[in-house]
Amino acid sequence: MLGRKGSKLKIQPKRVSKDSLMGNEVKYIVEPQDFLFGETEAEKLELDCGQRFGPVNIRYETYGELDAGGNNAILVLHALTGDAHVSGYHGVDDLKPGWWNDMIGSGKWIDTEKYFVVCSNILGGCSGTTGPRSINPETRKPYNLDFPIITIGDMVKAQYRLMKHLGIKKWLSMVGGSMGGMQALEWVTRFPDAVGSVIPVATTARLSSQSIAFDWVGREAITADSKWREGNYEQQVPEQGLATARMLAHITYLSDESMANKFGRELQESGSYSFGFGRDFAVESYLQYQGQRFVERFDANSYLYITRAMDYFDISADSDGDLIKALENVKSSFLVIAFSSDWLFPPAQSHDIVNALLKNGVDVSFCEVQSGYGHDAFLLEVETLGRMVSDFIRNRYQEICND
Amino acid sequence: MLGRKGSKLKIQPKRVSKDSLMGNEVKYIVEPQDFLFGETEAEKLELDCGQRFGPVNIRYETYGELDAGGNNAILVLHALTGDAHVSGYHGVDDLKPGWWNDMIGSGKWIDTEKYFVVCSNILGGCSGTTGPRSINPETRKPYNLDFPIITIGDMVKAQYRLMKHLGIKKWLSMVGGSMGGMQALEWVTRFPDAVGSVIPVATTARLSSQSIAFDWVGREAITADSKWREGNYEQQVPEQGLATARMLAHITYLSDESMANKFGRELQESGSYSFGFGRDFAVESYLQYQGQRFVERFDANSYLYITRAMDYFDISADSDGDLIKALENVKSSFLVIAFSSDWLFPPAQSHDIVNALLKNGVDVSFCEVQSGYGHDAFLLEVETLGRMVSDFIRNRYQEICND
Repeated sequence: MLGRKGSKLKIQPKRVSKDSLMGNEVKYIVEPQDFLFGETEAEKLELDCGQRFGPVNIRYETYGELDAGGNNAILVLHALTGDAHVSGYHGVDDLKPGWWNDMIGSGKWIDTEKYFVVCSNILGGCSGTTGPRSINPETRKPYNLDFPIITIGDMVKAQYRLMKHLGIKKWLSMVGGSMGGMQALEWVTRFPDAVGSVIPVATTARLSSQSIAFDWVGREAITADSKWREGNYEQQVPEQGLATARMLAHITYLSDESMANKFGRELQESGSYSFGFGRDFAVESYLQYQGQRFVERFDANSYLYITRAMDYFDISADSDGDLIKALENVKSSFLVIAFSSDWLFPPAQSHDIVNALLKNGVDVSFCEVQSGYGHDAFLLEVETLGRMVSDFIRNRYQEICND
Repeated sequence: MLGRKGSKLKIQPKRVSKDSLMGNEVKYIVEPQDFLFGETEAEKLELDCGQRFGPVNIRYETYGELDAGGNNAILVLHALTGDAHVSGYHGVDDLKPGWWNDMIGSGKWIDTEKYFVVCSNILGGCSGTTGPRSINPETRKPYNLDFPIITIGDMVKAQYRLMKHLGIKKWLSMVGGSMGGMQALEWVTRFPDAVGSVIPVATTARLSSQSIAFDWVGREAITADSKWREGNYEQQVPEQGLATARMLAHITYLSDESMANKFGRELQESGSYSFGFGRDFAVESYLQYQGQRFVERFDANSYLYITRAMDYFDISADSDGDLIKALENVKSSFLVIAFSSDWLFPPAQSHDIVNALLKNGVDVSFCEVQSGYGHDAFLLEVETLGRMVSDFIRNRYQEICND
């Protein structure tokens, strides 16, 4: 899974180039890069579980150029099933752009002509960064369940190594939705001097009981699949279990309203009930499709580890649940964004973050976007989000340049 | 599964008797009864799928006595996983009373000294009434997936046969929560002359896209279990799949708020993270317990059939989604009750029912109970519910007696 295993590519700041003109569309081609660290005992990553872990490969992509003062670096933090490929294409024949292509790129809301954007696949992931399916160099087999339980904080510690590697002293800003927002909160508390400003979107300061419960059921579906084999699957992967977990999670990403609008009780084909257990309803077909596509691109063990990391996420764990105390060392300015119909991480959970920041005298802006899209709004409400993000980052950049 | 297969017990109206005094508790002993019909072709039940089906055994219980005028009969309609045993005990050593024992009984909110209460296990169930695990008399094997797909309407048609068998001409009232409320809505539209008044609680006029989606995922978990064997399981039942389906459903019965209050992020034992995949959180233990208990009392194939019946439930299916038209022949008076934090069948879905009834000039009362318990409130808010139900039924009874 390491891909360019062992390679230590030098930073090549401008990874985006106008390579190909296809019809009216300019395809920006970006090359994934790898950063390997922790090969010696001293360099290993100290995990929250107490283990020292390495080597670690981080798969990442960069867009734009770091300016002379090193003031224009922006870190994008992906959600549960995202990856480092946030914008552009991997080749001229590539049909699918990065997952936030409408937000990030030349002339876009986060303008890569102006900013240097970095996105890396999380520790524990399955898209290039070391995770449970990576080869354990000691055994030459996949780690599987020997992979240590990691936390959101561990993901951030790995990202910090990448930051140093890239020669970045301080992030102008960082932005992340859902689990990306959790990483952002870990950054501002673990490395307060390294983060100028931060934009947590559709996220929470701690995973709720309900979310822990959904994660539990998702993992039960995976581990109940006979093909999972205690994590030691080979050719036959636990597709059904992973698809079931994904379908369940997918429901929590949508809202009751968006599902009613998109599918309602619409029937799939014949227009009448089949009086069977197949896919009668459009929503059933949609879910099954989502489940099937997901297993083609995501790993079951990674899903276990990452959901567990989210369960463990509580920014106030070290302050006995006191969120104000947890955020007392924060030095970054904040733009917090929530979506009205998000019931996975509802606006009230963002209010908690904002109130605790205000109590600490932190410079914080908050917006609750009226949207029917549920949690997925952080990926769908690009224009609303983009306008706010763009303004916020531009103002922070101007403040630095005027200093 | 038929229990007293073939028996046609004569109605014995007073099934509740003060049999045993244990400590301060009077245990009311009730005996389950069976009603078998549809043994001849002419007597078979015509199902919504077009099949004629029989024989059908209905397991039921009765409490109190039918009065001389036949005016005091109340039908209680159970939810997805309920059964006919709604009140009292099956024997002096029985530790667990019926599922709505606090609501129904001598001197209780629905007073069996005054009313004749009937509750039957639904068609397709697994608690005495004919369902997919019942023996097909033609093959002498369980029906399993040869059992026809049934609807909520089919359940009600079977209950109508029981009503005739019991010599009841018209129900004074009927009450049901969740899927019980769906049955109530089928009753008032299919048999408008047979229902004096009706109390649908925490229910909906049609299953939403989101609920259909949750049902789909639950069924996927069951059918993915290798022990399910296309429904032909024998000794080894698909426990894991059924438990996963139950745990998922259970989350939808609670509210985010009630889970936060009951469990929060409370850790199970050590007080710190185990850095493993076991049960760290109290909510994980709770869910696992619920899943394990459920598989001891419920059948996987029944779960498939009953959730499918709910998916198909749309009281306005024959009127192109026009709920006003669907309810135009209703002759019953209504008390509709919803719970503020119920997100499975949220109050807005009860508003739709109430508004359509009002447009038809139906006598309808509505109460949205402020409760943090989510959908489960219909079982937990007994006093609030009991007060309203008791008043409503008493008034309807007085109207009849004064006629």
